[in-house]
Order: sequence, then structure tokens, then C-alpha cells
Amino acid sequence: MDRVYAVVMAGGSGTRFWPASRQRLPKQLLPLADDPDEALLAATLRRIEPIVPVENVFIATNQRLRDETRRVVPRVPESQVLAEPAARNTAPCIAWATAAIARRDPEALVMVLPSDHYVTNEEEFRTVVRRALESAKSGTMTTIGILPTRPETGYGYIELGTDLGSGVRSVKRFVEKPSLPVAEEYLAGKHHLWNAGMFFFRAHVMQAAIAKHLPELHAGIARIDAAAKAGDEYDEVASTFPTLPAISIDHGVMEKMRDLAVVPGDFGWSDVGSWQTAWELGEKDENGNVLSEIALAIDAKRNLVRDLRDRSAKRVIALVGVNDLVVVETEDALLVIPRHRAQDVRLVVEALKAGGKAEHL
Amino acid sequence: MDRVYAVVMAGGSGTRFWPASRQRLPKQLLPLADDPDEALLAATLRRIEPIVPVENVFIATNQRLRDETRRVVPRVPESQVLAEPAARNTAPCIAWATAAIARRDPEALVMVLPSDHYVTNEEEFRTVVRRALESAKSGTMTTIGILPTRPETGYGYIELGTDLGSGVRSVKRFVEKPSLPVAEEYLAGKHHLWNAGMFFFRAHVMQAAIAKHLPELHAGIARIDAAAKAGDEYDEVASTFPTLPAISIDHGVMEKMRDLAVVPGDFGWSDVGSWQTAWELGEKDENGNVLSEIALAIDAKRNLVRDLRDRSAKRVIALVGVNDLVVVETEDALLVIPRHRAQDVRLVVEALKAGGKAEHL
Repeated sequence: MDRVYAVVMAGGSGTRFWPASRQRLPKQLLPLADDPDEALLAATLRRIEPIVPVENVFIATNQRLRDETRRVVPRVPESQVLAEPAARNTAPCIAWATAAIARRDPEALVMVLPSDHYVTNEEEFRTVVRRALESAKSGTMTTIGILPTRPETGYGYIELGTDLGSGVRSVKRFVEKPSLPVAEEYLAGKHHLWNAGMFFFRAHVMQAAIAKHLPELHAGIARIDAAAKAGDEYDEVASTFPTLPAISIDHGVMEKMRDLAVVPGDFGWSDVGSWQTAWELGEKDENGNVLSEIALAIDAKRNLVRDLRDRSAKRVIALVGVNDLVVVETEDALLVIPRHRAQDVRLVVEALKAGGKAEHL
Repeated sequence: MDRVYAVVMAGGSGTRFWPASRQRLPKQLLPLADDPDEALLAATLRRIEPIVPVENVFIATNQRLRDETRRVVPRVPESQVLAEPAARNTAPCIAWATAAIARRDPEALVMVLPSDHYVTNEEEFRTVVRRALESAKSGTMTTIGILPTRPETGYGYIELGTDLGSGVRSVKRFVEKPSLPVAEEYLAGKHHLWNAGMFFFRAHVMQAAIAKHLPELHAGIARIDAAAKAGDEYDEVASTFPTLPAISIDHGVMEKMRDLAVVPGDFGWSDVGSWQTAWELGEKDENGNVLSEIALAIDAKRNLVRDLRDRSAKRVIALVGVNDLVVVETEDALLVIPRHRAQDVRLVVEALKAGGKAEHL
């Protein structure tokens, strides 16, 4: 039986969920989907637990987020929370985690997953994941492609190649974010899938690919690996990691692979892109409101209320006669914005930056 | 030179400013008008200070509000904050304060004022007050009537009588809250003024009027007065006050007076009746927003933001793309309601009561 490991990419930051998401508390550490008690990262681990026990999970994050990340997923062993000293994009991050896994088992089957996405049909998701792992067993690097449901211009696409059987296709090529007419063609043509950043491979296969396509990265990771074997990993990480080439795994490795496989997936996937998405995913009352337990909605419809403050202080949020609003409370900030303008949260972040209010970022 | 005293009626409670106004923090103790740092009660005292020094001010409140009231107007001598042990309407309250003033000076000129109203033109207000005091000097009980600016059905009216000279008229009669057609007649006819609950009299004149029209009240207050002279006022207040007849000064005294005078006033008066009024009175930015200093309005117009929480915690409130909203924050509650629905705050209070959430009332 092959040992399966997961590398969950949890070092991201962003502003689209301000004021909930902050420099020290980004999206993956927040409960932004259906369960107001479960952070997206925790949901990611729960979702794969029937396939990967938590003791085989590695979390790739950064030093600033390390403590809060451990708080959100306390069952992940401390040594498996890899805290980068500098942001170097996904290739160095995956290379480091793969080296750590390969030290235990070079034949290990590894899945790389984002930490901040959402899946509606978890059973189907696991079926697709098992299919991808099966494909990766043979040594073929494999990804999951999401069946598009709209002409999305914000994602990269994967063009389907030949049928490899068992629900697996070859990857013809990776495509950058398309224009709207092109995205519409993709949607109609059914030959393009969304690239959701999920990758499956044997550890030594990824190591060989990095050695071939990113030799500088390979050399740096080799030094870290040697230091780890000598019991002194973090000093080497501190000096070496910031010097590694900052490149994505897509550009650095995946797009250069000759034989890459993709498993099409259709399991109600979302990248939880804005408060609008959080409302779409949230559990609604009879008036379409997604409310926290302390919220009172009177004559109010289709609103999203999220309270991320300390719950021991018995607070109440009352909405009267308002519709389609997003209302988000944190200990030090309140946001009120129409759902359809959720993307404009960035305007607040920009205004706070311009106003020198760094403490609210 | 006559000594002038003020009795400021500050025992009121209400729900129209929830969540700012609470059982323990009613409207008069809150900054609901133009200055976000000045409670309505404090503004009332500041407004009359050129006429009545603060050492001549008596505050009529109740035991529950006593400490918070003293915090809001700390310069009023402690012995002059009269804390009722039970709510008995305005006649017992004015009678008690008048007795306290008469012990110092039976000839004292007394003005009774509500604590929770707002005045735009303070200079004109004081001119009218001086006119009323002048009228009261001769022994005529005098009131101020506000020139109506709309057919208001929520107030009582004063019908004008003969011209007594010096801007003073006799009162023909007090009129109860009228129907809309009647209120429209009053507005057009210019013979009716709003009764704003402001009264001016010599202390002994009020005492004589109470003795004549409310003998039971007079007897009770006489016992309290005797106890006060003996240095033991509060024990007597505790036992006697709750037994006094609960009646308003309007019904109990004013409406029964033969010669009552009224000074018409036109000084931008408001009873600060709802969050809508608070917005009308507030200082607006170029987009018509009334904001607290911590608020950020982006592409947002004509909103009212009030933050009544501890200011040392540097919080931010961001409104994006919303118009004509009321957003009020307190330590334990948030309200979001359209301005034009401000009266429906009562729906929240009712829902909280029904839900057993007394801590938020």
C-alpha cells in the first residue's frame, strides 16, 4: 500500500475579505464557507482525511502565519508546519515540502492542494482525488481540472489531450488567463478545464523534475535537505530559502512536463473569491440571509452577516429593512457594502493604506 | 438681582435610539446632535450657562441613572442631582426640585427644561428664555411655545391668547396631540405653538399652585422638605416619593392656571426624536454623510454613522457603495437600518424582548 501525503499550501495573503482577512489572518485561516466555525484550511484537511491521515499532512506557510496556522489545525505535527522565511512563490515551497516527505519515503504519493478553496460535493471530490493518485502512482505527474461553469477570465485553463482511460486525460497544454471571448469559447468547446492548483505525484518524480527544469532550486533544496538530515534544517532555511528562484510550480515545472495527466473534476468547486461567494456558499435562512448566530434580521433579505469577534461578549447585530448587504465585524473594523460590489473591498484597503492606517490592514 | 435656577428633567428613558440608548444610558446622556462628544444633557447646561451658572442647576433624574448622569455633567453639585426612587411623572419631580430651591430662596426664579432637546440658534434661544424669565418675575407662570414648522401630530399644542407686550402672550388653552387635519389647521392658523415642556416661575408661585391644585402632592413634598431641613432628606424620599400622585405638570398644574403666559420661540428647536433627526442635526461631509472620526465612506452618501464604543480601541468603520443608511455601533450591538425607517428601531427592541435578550435593552 502506497503511503499518501498531502502538502497544503497555506501561505497566501489577500485583501478581498477585508476586514476579516488581514495580514496576520488571511483567508485560509477564516471560516468563510458554510460552517461559521471551520476555517477553510481546517475544512481542506477534514475533506481529505479519509485519504490522508493528519499525521501525513504538511502545511506550507510562512513565519508570520505559523502560530495562527497551528492554532487552526492543531493536529498537524509541529515539524510538518513548514514556515517560509520569505515568499518565493509555489515552486520552492513545493520543493521544500517534497524533500521533507522524500526523506521519509521517496516513493511516497504526494498531493498538493490549496488551503483556501471550497468543495460542495466532498464524496465526489475524494473520488476524483483517488483517480488522480492512481494516475500518479505510475509516475505520471497528474493534476485535477475543474469543469468550467462560466466563462471565467480570472483563472488559468488546462487544455485536454488524449484519453488515457480510467477518467484520466493527458494535458495538451496550460493556457494563461483568457479574454472573455476566448473564455466563452472554452466554456462552449468543453476541451478546457480550470487549473485549480491541485497536483499529484510521486515524491521522487517531482524531485527529478525540479532537478531537470529548475536546477538552481534543486541545489538550494539539496542544501536544506542535507541540513535537515543533520538536524539543523531551520538555520539553512533562514539563509537559503530567501535566495531560491521565485517561480510558480505551474511555470517552473508543470508547463515543461512532457507527460502530464489531468483528471476532470465536477464536485462543486469554488475558490471563495469574495464576500459574494461567501454568501453564495453560506447556509441561508428563509429570507436568503446568511447570518451569524448573534444576528437579527427584520424585514431584511439576502444579506451576509459575519461576526469574527470574540463570541464570549454577547453581542447582537440587527439589520432592519436592508437587502443584499455584506456586513462584517471584527474586533477593530466594520464593513458595510452591497454584495454586488464585494470586489470593491479593495477600495477600503487602498484608502487605509493611503491614510496610513496600517493597523487595519 | 433675582437669582435664577434651572431644573433640568433628565429621568427619561426610551427605545428610539437603540442600540445607543439603553435602560441605563438613555437619550439625554448620549451625544445625539451635532457634537459627537457632547451629550444632549451637557449641551442643555452649556446652552443656559450664560443665564444660569452650573451651581444653580438641579438635575431631576432617577436612582438608576444617577451615577452616569453625574459623569456626564460633573460640575453640577452632587446634592443637586435629585435621584427619584420611582417614576411619578413630572409634577412630583418639579415639586421636589422647587422645594429644594425654595429652601435657599423662596423668591428664586426657576426654569424647568427638558434635557434631551436640541437648539440650533442658541443666542435666540437665550433671548426667548430671558423674555420668559422677565415674564415670570411678576409672578406669572410662563412657558415657551415653539413656532410649528410642520403639521406635527406627536406633540401637544398651546393656543395663543391676548398680547401681554414684550413678546409675551397669554395662554388661551393647552391642546392635546391633534389629528393631522387639525394639526394642518394649527400650522396654517398661526395661533398654536408646540408645547416643548419649558416652564418659568418664581419658586413660591409654583409651590402655591401645587398646594392649590395638587394638595396630596403638596403634603408629601412638605414631609420631604421638613426631613431635608432636618438633614435626612433621602430616607423620607425613599418612603414618600413612591406614594406621590403620578401626574404631569401640564395636567396637574399648567392647564389649571388662570393666568399663564407663553413666549413664542423660533430658534431651530428639535426634540431629537429618532436617528433620522440625529442625521438631520449632524455635521455633514460633502456627500451628506454624518460620520464619526473612525468612519470611512467610499462612494457612499447621506449616511449616519455613530460609534459609541470605547475610542481607545482604534477601530474603523467602512461604508462602501451604500446610501441613506443609519449604522450605529455600541460595545455590544450593531444596528443597520435605512434612515427613512428609523422609527422601526422599535421592532428590534420588541424582538430582543421577545427573544429574552434583556441584556441588550
